[in-house]
Amino acid sequence: MWTVDEAALERIAIGAGILGTGGGGNPYLGKLHARELIAARGPVAVVEPDELADDALVVSVGSMGAPTVSVERIKQGDEELVALRALERHLGRGATHLVPGEIGGSNALRPIAVAAQTGLPVVDGDGMGRAFPELQMDTFSIYGVRPTPAALADPRGQVVLFDAIADASTLERYARAVTIQMGGAAGYAFPPMTGAELKRTVVPHTMTLAARVGDAVITARASHDDPVEAVLGVTGGQRLFTGKIADVERRLVGGFARGVLRLDGTSHDAGRRLRIDFQNENLIARVDDGEVLAVVPDLICLVDTDTAEPITTEVVRYGLRVVVLGIPAPSMLTSSAALAVIGPAAFGYPDVPYVPLPGTYGTGAATPTAAAL
Amino acid sequence: MWTVDEAALERIAIGAGILGTGGGGNPYLGKLHARELIAARGPVAVVEPDELADDALVVSVGSMGAPTVSVERIKQGDEELVALRALERHLGRGATHLVPGEIGGSNALRPIAVAAQTGLPVVDGDGMGRAFPELQMDTFSIYGVRPTPAALADPRGQVVLFDAIADASTLERYARAVTIQMGGAAGYAFPPMTGAELKRTVVPHTMTLAARVGDAVITARASHDDPVEAVLGVTGGQRLFTGKIADVERRLVGGFARGVLRLDGTSHDAGRRLRIDFQNENLIARVDDGEVLAVVPDLICLVDTDTAEPITTEVVRYGLRVVVLGIPAPSMLTSSAALAVIGPAAFGYPDVPYVPLPGTYGTGAATPTAAAL
Repeated sequence: MWTVDEAALERIAIGAGILGTGGGGNPYLGKLHARELIAARGPVAVVEPDELADDALVVSVGSMGAPTVSVERIKQGDEELVALRALERHLGRGATHLVPGEIGGSNALRPIAVAAQTGLPVVDGDGMGRAFPELQMDTFSIYGVRPTPAALADPRGQVVLFDAIADASTLERYARAVTIQMGGAAGYAFPPMTGAELKRTVVPHTMTLAARVGDAVITARASHDDPVEAVLGVTGGQRLFTGKIADVERRLVGGFARGVLRLDGTSHDAGRRLRIDFQNENLIARVDDGEVLAVVPDLICLVDTDTAEPITTEVVRYGLRVVVLGIPAPSMLTSSAALAVIGPAAFGYPDVPYVPLPGTYGTGAATPTAAAL
Repeated sequence: MWTVDEAALERIAIGAGILGTGGGGNPYLGKLHARELIAARGPVAVVEPDELADDALVVSVGSMGAPTVSVERIKQGDEELVALRALERHLGRGATHLVPGEIGGSNALRPIAVAAQTGLPVVDGDGMGRAFPELQMDTFSIYGVRPTPAALADPRGQVVLFDAIADASTLERYARAVTIQMGGAAGYAFPPMTGAELKRTVVPHTMTLAARVGDAVITARASHDDPVEAVLGVTGGQRLFTGKIADVERRLVGGFARGVLRLDGTSHDAGRRLRIDFQNENLIARVDDGEVLAVVPDLICLVDTDTAEPITTEVVRYGLRVVVLGIPAPSMLTSSAALAVIGPAAFGYPDVPYVPLPGTYGTGAATPTAAAL
């Protein structure tokens, strides 16, 4: 067990931003909210998946919606807590642990905020090892955890509960429709799962990984080393492309931010152009001749060339100088069961095979925990 | 108290079809379903609003969606019961009575079906005295009953619960979005209300009125009298127009059947044309020179010239010979509070004043109950 204090939160927010692969919601507002709560109520406990009893009741909490909306709308900040309490009332039982649905973006931080509010510990792991745009795209669902009962709440305290929904894709459709009516963003609490289910389906140690990424960036900045190299050193990633944002096409469709980024290469990529398609998150990076440099579920992350600050879908703009990183997906995402849900075909690229990037997500199993930092 | 047996059900279905003013869902399938249940489990008790204890727990059940969908899709038939049971679990308390949300169309019959399934009595009254397309348009909501908790269920047993929703218009948006995702139709159970609330807000004696209308039609047909005249005799209505359907424009928009009917006048209306705008239900009847013959909330009902069979929005077609009836709205619908929600402006006709049709809905307070038929 380790704890998230304000300094650890800072590290996790940087790491979550990078692991968000452009989406997952900008961690900045989520960080401010969690920091305020930690300052008021003290650090949050983080427990390893293995520490959970089989009959623990773990609930994933976070925010659903297009990241562009989460920037534009003033959130009250209690949606996730309201959703959790509604789910607990429905279950007739209180949660024992919280877990992020996705370690990428602001949803890495929301369980920390709710943990500070409730005193519950957070599990060191998540359901994606990155961020994805749709509910059914987490390992909980992919590996058989039932998606409901599930709860959504909006900033006015209004609650929608879903029960006996056949599968996560159906829940995605129903919940997305409600989220759009709620103004484009809602707090969620689901799925509720046993400790045994969590241990079987979680992508482990990703809260630690986010903290390590953030620590590497902060340390490199302070010591005038290259923060981008520092990220590569702890994530198992590589540089895919260096360039300048030349064009951003972005539109809000069906509750998602969809579009295309175009980059003009600089330094050793001078003369080449890169195209990145995204649906909240970056999905595929292709050079002008069509060569695929990386494709989902591998992580395609834009960071500022000098600071390694993550450049997310909702803030990316013309002229930014970025490095495009490619980080191999965690092994939980590359099984055939997982690829059917989160591989290239599932995102509309049926002709693009998934060719894994070399390396190992988070540089492998020997990851030290954040407690050792 | 009286009971709905198979014969009474037949009468109510005819009356509900006419009072549906084109919408509310075709009563035919609802009648078959209720008849099967009554045959298997016996007649359903109908109680006067005044008979309810103040602390009774009354729940309105019915089907939400575009009537065109209810015809096209094979319904399982248990959605309303599933929704009721989900609402009862959420409340931690069982319903004591059921009430139709609207006496017009198939939603007059669904509470009867659920009553047969559960053994609960049905209240002689409803929330509209007719049919309307949207949730917030019932007298329960207009006169202050909170709309939630509310439950929706689909034919697969999937449930969505709404809680702490600020107002019925918001619930309408949220529930409509879910209903569309559910395939265009869903069973609902809401609002739950006390006996005191029901008595204060219900449009009373409308189950009796539907049965009287049906009885008048059946009796007139059997005795070779004019069934249309028979309807006028018991509803307080008048003939607005006699003609032939010349054109039907109908489209499914946002979960509603919207469109325009055009009629060529026959007999004493020869040479005139009538235009009727509808949103599930008929909203406004205008002759070619723009003269408004009747406007919502008054009832504009199309019936077959010879048989008085109701012609609903989803079955109306070129060539049918119809009489357009105008029936004055119940007084619960003509207060300024009600007109703000269900008057012409609320349906997009801000320049059309509500000029009430002469007469009294159901020919007034001295309505005998169906028990006396």
